[in-house]
Amino acid sequence: MLQDQTFLRAPGPTPIPDRVKHAMNQPMIGHRSPSFARLFADTSERLKPIFGTSQPVYTLTASGTAALEAAVTNTVAKGEKVIVVVAGAFGDRFANVCEHNGYNTHRLEIEWGRSVTSEELKSTLKEHQDAKAVLLTYNETSTGVMHPIQQLSQTVHQYSEALVLVDGVSCIGGVPGNMDQWNLDVLVTGSQKAMMLPPGLSFVALSKRAEAKLEEGNPSFYLNIKAYQKQLENSMTPYTPAVSLIQGLQEVSKMMEEETLEHVFDRHQIMKDMTRAGIKALGLPLLTNEEDASPTVTSVRETEQFKPDELRSLLSKQFGLTLAGGQKELKGKIFRIGHMGYCSPADVLTTLSMIEIGLQQLGVDIELGAGVKAAQEVYVKHV
Amino acid sequence: MLQDQTFLRAPGPTPIPDRVKHAMNQPMIGHRSPSFARLFADTSERLKPIFGTSQPVYTLTASGTAALEAAVTNTVAKGEKVIVVVAGAFGDRFANVCEHNGYNTHRLEIEWGRSVTSEELKSTLKEHQDAKAVLLTYNETSTGVMHPIQQLSQTVHQYSEALVLVDGVSCIGGVPGNMDQWNLDVLVTGSQKAMMLPPGLSFVALSKRAEAKLEEGNPSFYLNIKAYQKQLENSMTPYTPAVSLIQGLQEVSKMMEEETLEHVFDRHQIMKDMTRAGIKALGLPLLTNEEDASPTVTSVRETEQFKPDELRSLLSKQFGLTLAGGQKELKGKIFRIGHMGYCSPADVLTTLSMIEIGLQQLGVDIELGAGVKAAQEVYVKHV
Repeated sequence: MLQDQTFLRAPGPTPIPDRVKHAMNQPMIGHRSPSFARLFADTSERLKPIFGTSQPVYTLTASGTAALEAAVTNTVAKGEKVIVVVAGAFGDRFANVCEHNGYNTHRLEIEWGRSVTSEELKSTLKEHQDAKAVLLTYNETSTGVMHPIQQLSQTVHQYSEALVLVDGVSCIGGVPGNMDQWNLDVLVTGSQKAMMLPPGLSFVALSKRAEAKLEEGNPSFYLNIKAYQKQLENSMTPYTPAVSLIQGLQEVSKMMEEETLEHVFDRHQIMKDMTRAGIKALGLPLLTNEEDASPTVTSVRETEQFKPDELRSLLSKQFGLTLAGGQKELKGKIFRIGHMGYCSPADVLTTLSMIEIGLQQLGVDIELGAGVKAAQEVYVKHV
Repeated sequence: MLQDQTFLRAPGPTPIPDRVKHAMNQPMIGHRSPSFARLFADTSERLKPIFGTSQPVYTLTASGTAALEAAVTNTVAKGEKVIVVVAGAFGDRFANVCEHNGYNTHRLEIEWGRSVTSEELKSTLKEHQDAKAVLLTYNETSTGVMHPIQQLSQTVHQYSEALVLVDGVSCIGGVPGNMDQWNLDVLVTGSQKAMMLPPGLSFVALSKRAEAKLEEGNPSFYLNIKAYQKQLENSMTPYTPAVSLIQGLQEVSKMMEEETLEHVFDRHQIMKDMTRAGIKALGLPLLTNEEDASPTVTSVRETEQFKPDELRSLLSKQFGLTLAGGQKELKGKIFRIGHMGYCSPADVLTTLSMIEIGLQQLGVDIELGAGVKAAQEVYVKHV
């Protein structure tokens, strides 16, 4: 292993581009200064196309879980019924947030590794017509499943008055937000996934419909969106924001604009296809079907020939490669490859080539280079 | 003004040392990795002497206000009575946090610019014997008043069973924490003041007495200390932490250990004395008495000859110097000089010399160099 060399391929945090590090090394500025107001006005504006909204996007100094809590506690009155689609650890997290806050929480449990269907959601909506919100996970990080948010949102709006609250933490920035077009009422993301920043910021946008519900919420003091709303008018935050991360956010936004969002989203699709083709060529089982597959993270199942956690440990020691393991019921049963944010097709090839070596060292019957070749073929066809 | 040169002398955020920037530029690491666990075990341990406690110190990815909210909501049952000493904008913030969370909040209002006395606190305690907690601001950033926390804590414990919850945001790291010795039940600080880091982290420590009250609290999901407690056993955090800031925290802690905490605290005392001597020598009125004066921030009143906000604006344009203005009832009436964290006696001299020029340019009748000279004399006597 080359000293100091690391390959961070967890599904968040993700590597930080040098340009962004430089931006975060700028002199610190006061958060009540005109310089900060200019910076924050700019970053708040640049987040809008990433979310696919003309509504304001609020920046919280907190990780994604806080933004999930903000989403529901600001827009749904305490004690009301909410439906949470739980198809993995982060659906479970969203449900835990609701239960903790005293909501009448109905969990629509989906087997881990597939997406919820509109039919399933429809029948739950009919059973729980008093639900005030439906909480969805856009991309379930723990399984690598991307839910069909556009259809699900349509289904909710067709059969109920409930708000659609979407956890987009592990994909926004790598896939379209389309918040306005898809009628999402709250969309949330974090800084440390497809947004190419260190963890520490999260972002929340509300539809006009969700804004109209703000009076009904019981948020904590720190997560009260009305306070953020009021301060955003002055391009400020109500409490001291993570200034250096916001300096980085400006640079990240510029990078995404230079690449163009269309290319960013394409790149994530290509990386997904390359990763899946490579894994399949090695004869390893993928956790998810093609149509459910996430553009930001791919889960690979164990076989009788290897234990995912042994592979991860071996590759970490040998190359400094970080892959993620399984969470909760998938603990020890899968490994996950993150391919989001500051990650390229070249990085996918590198990752696959290391995985092949690790597998062979563990005695798995694979042909060295076969996964890389399949991924290369996908790449060559795409470009 | 030299391009890119700035002098950030607000009472937070404060400048970031180069070593700390370098530390924050290290490769990103996964927050569930052994590398992160080693890092976090180390920083959590190194925070203890800064807090003056053998109890665990919890790291929140959020700004100081969230930590204030965590302090009270985790340890006091909803609806119970709390006493909040309000002697400035941050006492007011602490009271707002309590009111928002449904506490029966008694404000002990103190005129802005002086500290509360033990006598005043004693009579309030006698009137409100059912108070479950007394909320104190160690250093009131908005006025530059340091409250006599040791005596106040003693008074609370002498006359009541109430917990002592202390907002140490704008001083911990620059003055002794002494949490165990002074029987403070909760002590809170932020990263961006005397801790020499960018904003984005806050820290909370609980006494054993406060820990025993955790079952009574109603914290939000994100600020539930029990979740942090459980994860700290594995040197982890329950939700994705601001990894880069924690990388910086390790370096900051090393710097403070190398300087020694004793010298760090001395340095802040000297900077306070230099600043006050300089301002007095210029004939400007200080907001606070000597015995109330904060080692981290000094407030200077307006005179008939100048408007503080004009001085601030002039110095910002001319030198890139950031001074803070007044908040709320002191808006426009004072300016505040931050001298905490990565700030030296040399920086105080620079600041005073720029202030002198600004004052003369505004037509104030001062002698150039007189403030600097008085500060130099303090310095020379001290070292």
